[in-house]
Amino acid sequence: MATISQKAQAMPASAIRKLIPLADAAKERGVKVFHLNMGQPDIKSPACALDAVKENNLKLVSYSNSAGLIGLRKDMVSKYYRSIGINLDTADILMTVGGSEAVNFAVEITCDEGDEILTIEPFYTNYNTFAFMNGITIKAVHTDIRDGFKVPPVEEFEKMVTPRTKAILLSNPGNPTGTLYGKDEMLRIGELCRKKDLWLICDEVYREFCYSDEPYFSAMNIPALEQNVILVDSVSKRYNLCGARIGCIVSRNKDVMAAAMKYAQARLCPPIYGQIAAIGALDTPQEYFQAVKEEYIARRNCMVEGLNRIPGVFSPLPTGAFYTIASLPVDDAEKFARWMLSEFTHEGATVQITPAASFYKTPGEGLNQARIAYVLEIPEIQKALEVLEAGLKVYPGRTL
Amino acid sequence: MATISQKAQAMPASAIRKLIPLADAAKERGVKVFHLNMGQPDIKSPACALDAVKENNLKLVSYSNSAGLIGLRKDMVSKYYRSIGINLDTADILMTVGGSEAVNFAVEITCDEGDEILTIEPFYTNYNTFAFMNGITIKAVHTDIRDGFKVPPVEEFEKMVTPRTKAILLSNPGNPTGTLYGKDEMLRIGELCRKKDLWLICDEVYREFCYSDEPYFSAMNIPALEQNVILVDSVSKRYNLCGARIGCIVSRNKDVMAAAMKYAQARLCPPIYGQIAAIGALDTPQEYFQAVKEEYIARRNCMVEGLNRIPGVFSPLPTGAFYTIASLPVDDAEKFARWMLSEFTHEGATVQITPAASFYKTPGEGLNQARIAYVLEIPEIQKALEVLEAGLKVYPGRTL
Repeated sequence: MATISQKAQAMPASAIRKLIPLADAAKERGVKVFHLNMGQPDIKSPACALDAVKENNLKLVSYSNSAGLIGLRKDMVSKYYRSIGINLDTADILMTVGGSEAVNFAVEITCDEGDEILTIEPFYTNYNTFAFMNGITIKAVHTDIRDGFKVPPVEEFEKMVTPRTKAILLSNPGNPTGTLYGKDEMLRIGELCRKKDLWLICDEVYREFCYSDEPYFSAMNIPALEQNVILVDSVSKRYNLCGARIGCIVSRNKDVMAAAMKYAQARLCPPIYGQIAAIGALDTPQEYFQAVKEEYIARRNCMVEGLNRIPGVFSPLPTGAFYTIASLPVDDAEKFARWMLSEFTHEGATVQITPAASFYKTPGEGLNQARIAYVLEIPEIQKALEVLEAGLKVYPGRTL
Repeated sequence: MATISQKAQAMPASAIRKLIPLADAAKERGVKVFHLNMGQPDIKSPACALDAVKENNLKLVSYSNSAGLIGLRKDMVSKYYRSIGINLDTADILMTVGGSEAVNFAVEITCDEGDEILTIEPFYTNYNTFAFMNGITIKAVHTDIRDGFKVPPVEEFEKMVTPRTKAILLSNPGNPTGTLYGKDEMLRIGELCRKKDLWLICDEVYREFCYSDEPYFSAMNIPALEQNVILVDSVSKRYNLCGARIGCIVSRNKDVMAAAMKYAQARLCPPIYGQIAAIGALDTPQEYFQAVKEEYIARRNCMVEGLNRIPGVFSPLPTGAFYTIASLPVDDAEKFARWMLSEFTHEGATVQITPAASFYKTPGEGLNQARIAYVLEIPEIQKALEVLEAGLKVYPGRTL
């Protein structure tokens, strides 16, 4: 019998998705599972996006240009990016199969095998996956739950730069911490990138989910860094269109875009129906975003207050995105997550959380932490908190 | 200014798509371009697939399971594969973002950097791209246009096996030659794979496009090779749904499927609307396929007879898919293709062909050959042939 490659064997499983089989088994036993594990909001997609697909009159679903439909790219530039103060040419944008593909392209374009990317821990685990797939090392500046995952001083990045460092990769606001980089912090990161001639890959897919009064400052607007910035974006979170699988990679560096096109051509084109949904989504009224944002602020407050009321649990207050990292009074958050799905119920329900250890590079960090998404309606969040508290009271590995 | 990675610089551009900018420029000058370059048929997608999307009632376009919607996978097994004599469990199938992603997954799962994959030249150029992306070498058994690209004896493969050879990758019927592997030939390949313990990756996306009387024989039905076979499939060609971006990777080897799931989770999920179209497509009536096949046989005959009537041109008669490789009386088919798009018109029209050299591994092979897709209606094919003939008469690098 042939054996699979060593690389495929070593490929990390998704920390966020690997517990799904246990959750499915629980559901099959009739258990209600509250999903705090995935960034899959329950808010409806904008009607204009759904209608664009329902009213399409394609007779033949053919390939588009590998960079995406020209109409979509033009509309992204004129209807979306211009409205948020990012001025682009159509040639600066290439549509991808979700933001995930855009991250992967950015990693492949900026780094060779053995190169290093700097980021901040805890970070979105798939950054690690894409780095692994390309033989690249992620190095992470530590941020600590006890400081509310405060943005570290730029000197911390500078200390970690080696001759193999090619890029800084930031998620702003941050998944999983909700940490927001303000203008001053972005300018300082920009200065470092200029000084060391590093790429700045900025994942801004949660741009619409900022809960501070400060205006959002995009990496695309750092002065005199145009040639070093690669933006990763997506319609998934902004319009609740996760399943459409449409994102984009954006850069004013023509070499980057030419290379992105080569990778894009290898997979032929982004999905057409998703592109149609994305075109429709660009007409989403401002009220939609306002309502969604207010809803998330309410959910965040409910979740974070609720978590902090549970004995032994601590969560900082995130200022963006729709996750928080909480520390739990348990020996090991992964064991606890598995136990919750396999052995525990409270009034016929349980809770799925994502163990946070794999969001860290530093060994041993985050072992008792979990990423918790506040993507459910408030009454559901309240019930989920009740179930979580009940579980923590009786979990055999509790530390309180 | 930061520079892009050496790997991204060396990444091959798509031979099939790299002339698109010249074609676009021709169109902007008002020139009609006959596209013989891409496998983008002009036949309508089945109404049941289009209607499934138009009548969907999603309110929220959320992620599916990374392996695809369970309903789609079940239907693929029971409605499609069973009907063509391939018996599968739902666990043997994972939906991908087009057949392209399935090829890439198969390459990653079977080979480590430095390993080798055997195939037959000329072959689909993106096999080379995916191998390049993963640091893997493609070695190709030569087949010759003068023999009509006849399937080579299995001994030719055996001679090329080294300790680094991990897989044989076949496209059946073959893109770009239309060569069909019959049952006996598949069994012999299977024997070699058993003997040398090689993976057999079989790309069967053109399975419905076979123009011989012999029944199609899938690699999935080679006896006692279940644990070594990986099938690559797609709805793109079968249902004229290229833009839906839905394919699948199929294997009875549980290690393969577990590894595929890890790669699938890294990109979250296949596009939802495409999956809905694919579910609808499974109800396509048999008459649709019959009509499409008859149309392609007529187009093939028209194209191949027409090509062979042009002085100095030779095309074998393909027995599958919807391409042929033709040799042209020119110094260099790529120069000719560029010249046709940039400098030539005949009655306001020109023709786009794909130079075939990059479909070969052997240096110098195929330089005067082109891949020609017969995906247009017969009157269009006739006009395209007329334009091609006119171009060949006056092309400065002609060799006749």
